[in-house]
Amino acid sequence: MVKKKFGERVRNLRAQSRMSQEKFALHIGMDRTYLASVESGKRNISIENIGKIAGGFGITLEELFKGM
Amino acid sequence: MVKKKFGERVRNLRAQSRMSQEKFALHIGMDRTYLASVESGKRNISIENIGKIAGGFGITLEELFKGM
Repeated sequence: MVKKKFGERVRNLRAQSRMSQEKFALHIGMDRTYLASVESGKRNISIENIGKIAGGFGITLEELFKGM
Repeated sequence: MVKKKFGERVRNLRAQSRMSQEKFALHIGMDRTYLASVESGKRNISIENIGKIAGGFGITLEELFKGM
């Protein structure tokens, strides 16, 4: 399911970048609990917030969805 | 801006597939006026609806965001 897969992808990329949820959320101006629920696959996240996450990792949307 | 770029991408893919907005919207179970506003870059579309669009084209999310 797409929300679950997206959440796992974000969690993996964040782990690779060695940032905590707190740090990454602060970095992209997103609430920490919101980011946590995205990573858990519980949020039907919007494209603007998806764009914020890609920007925070410094990657394109295509890269963010790689393998999805 | 991400909503605008996404809308253009959807419009281009739909044109390539030679489906009208009506036909494609019906195909994926989405309201025609909603699809029109997505293509116009006016909607902060959610990941579930993005997934529906990718499914309708028979492509992956990675392909849907190619070049974005």
